[in-house]
Amino acid sequence: MDRILLAHGSGGKLSHELIEKYFLPYFRNPFLELLNDQAVFDIHSRVAFTTDSYVVDPVFFPGGNIGDLAINGTVNDLAMGGAKPLYLSAGFILEEGFPIKELEDILSSMKDAADSAGVIVVTGDTKVVNKGKADKIFINTSGIGVIEKPINISAHNLKVGDKIIISGPIGEHGIAVMAKREGLEFEKEIRSDTAPLNSLVSDMLSASCDIHALRDPTRGGLATILKEFAISSNVGIVIYEDKIPVKDEVRGACEILGLDPLFVANEGRLAASASPDAAEAILKAMRRNKYGKDAEIIGEVVSEHKGVVILKTLIGGKRIIDMLMGEQLPRIC
Amino acid sequence: MDRILLAHGSGGKLSHELIEKYFLPYFRNPFLELLNDQAVFDIHSRVAFTTDSYVVDPVFFPGGNIGDLAINGTVNDLAMGGAKPLYLSAGFILEEGFPIKELEDILSSMKDAADSAGVIVVTGDTKVVNKGKADKIFINTSGIGVIEKPINISAHNLKVGDKIIISGPIGEHGIAVMAKREGLEFEKEIRSDTAPLNSLVSDMLSASCDIHALRDPTRGGLATILKEFAISSNVGIVIYEDKIPVKDEVRGACEILGLDPLFVANEGRLAASASPDAAEAILKAMRRNKYGKDAEIIGEVVSEHKGVVILKTLIGGKRIIDMLMGEQLPRIC
Repeated sequence: MDRILLAHGSGGKLSHELIEKYFLPYFRNPFLELLNDQAVFDIHSRVAFTTDSYVVDPVFFPGGNIGDLAINGTVNDLAMGGAKPLYLSAGFILEEGFPIKELEDILSSMKDAADSAGVIVVTGDTKVVNKGKADKIFINTSGIGVIEKPINISAHNLKVGDKIIISGPIGEHGIAVMAKREGLEFEKEIRSDTAPLNSLVSDMLSASCDIHALRDPTRGGLATILKEFAISSNVGIVIYEDKIPVKDEVRGACEILGLDPLFVANEGRLAASASPDAAEAILKAMRRNKYGKDAEIIGEVVSEHKGVVILKTLIGGKRIIDMLMGEQLPRIC
Repeated sequence: MDRILLAHGSGGKLSHELIEKYFLPYFRNPFLELLNDQAVFDIHSRVAFTTDSYVVDPVFFPGGNIGDLAINGTVNDLAMGGAKPLYLSAGFILEEGFPIKELEDILSSMKDAADSAGVIVVTGDTKVVNKGKADKIFINTSGIGVIEKPINISAHNLKVGDKIIISGPIGEHGIAVMAKREGLEFEKEIRSDTAPLNSLVSDMLSASCDIHALRDPTRGGLATILKEFAISSNVGIVIYEDKIPVKDEVRGACEILGLDPLFVANEGRLAASASPDAAEAILKAMRRNKYGKDAEIIGEVVSEHKGVVILKTLIGGKRIIDMLMGEQLPRIC
């Protein structure tokens, strides 16, 4: 048997075989292997809880696949709340006929990503739909993390004077997925930046707890999350084009494709708003972490133009930055 | 705008409008309305964590729809661990072109189901895929509940002598969905039994904590979960055909369709394995709850034929009951 059958989603014998033969070998741990319909553990803490479904097309792209993307994405959503990610769930929707070899490659990437991030998959679910009723594989991951420090990180919490920090160059994930999907080739291959950011956030919080907001600029890109910050906290934000790191190959691809890197998705970057007093120490800590080595302070929070993000351009102009309008790149994550 | 557009999944402006205009009005609560990528709350307890994706076809069926099914299913998976369900996540995968009116009907059912079960949806996610790349709507719900009593409920925990209890007649959900999908009409309409079972479990645990295993017989039906119980606990199970409640109309439909109600999915029933001393008290407590009024003791756990479930038939014969083989009814939940 080398392809997924409808009966793999029956809840009966083949479902059990799928779990025992493919899922458990990758994810085995004392919680999951009980094969109850729920995992049980103790928590005594503030907790963060998050969910994301992944429908990326294509399933495999330079730098990653839907599996590590699904682990990293949920790890990052927890980390963006200042939480230490601990327990993940994984829900699979498989299209009848999906090659089991590809499923194994995805599970293997999920295992590696979970190990890298220090999380475990404790509970899961698999459904199978008829051929043509889903596109290959969709994965939902939900996650639970614990918040151990006295922090209040929220898009509502930006303060005037805060520095805006980005952890590295933007736009790589979106361009990598799009290039693969459309069969585009660039001189230098552009790879997804998909990565777990929990160690980076942990290093940042060790440098200072004066971090007011954190978010990973996925769909909608850096522009959209800065606009969300500005609206949620009712402040203005100014960013400087010359400070925003963009790799040459991404800039080149964006020019060819008519895209603005500010709106292109990232999967291994974060933007932070932090007290001016703490920003330099946080930046230093970030640069010592491999996922933050190219971090930059790119702007600040101001009391003027509340709810509005302004980009100071290279040539000295000003541009108002809005959320992504319409759809730039569907099924990017 | 009356249909879902790709741009509703962009993460940008239309995604925000979808959330503000449709999701928040139904689910508004202090956790969700922060619109951070994670919900934050305190927990100091043993915790149960579960996930399930719902792909039921058709989306609307007699007695329910994919929305209340998704809430009840995850509430029930938590309750089956003896947990009090508290916080749910909801992840939507929408097909481009899905009518927004139908989405609203589904969200409205989810809200009602969440209210009935006493849970709140604290975090969510929405993705949109191109027309033809998913079938209308898929929903993932994950959930967190707290285990407040000193219990150890697990499929591994059945004891010889335990009584097997079923909370009501079996097979209604599966037949209701199948009839709707295939356009079958029966003399008396068969409606899904979808229901939240947390109050029932709470009443059972108030009667006695000597409940060793609980599970809701969804995909694969009662037969499959009893077989799982027998294997996981390495015990034998005997059940009596004349004790198993099946409504006449379900029995009739099963005869016409060549189905065995033991293998047909339920979404508002549970099976329990409980100490013989406690079984009568638990049964009484169940019958006082509206979701357990037709509960019956249908069998017992024995030391013989380990890992095997035997059905004593009406005419005095014996039948070995295995897990569901192959696929009986795809996309039943």
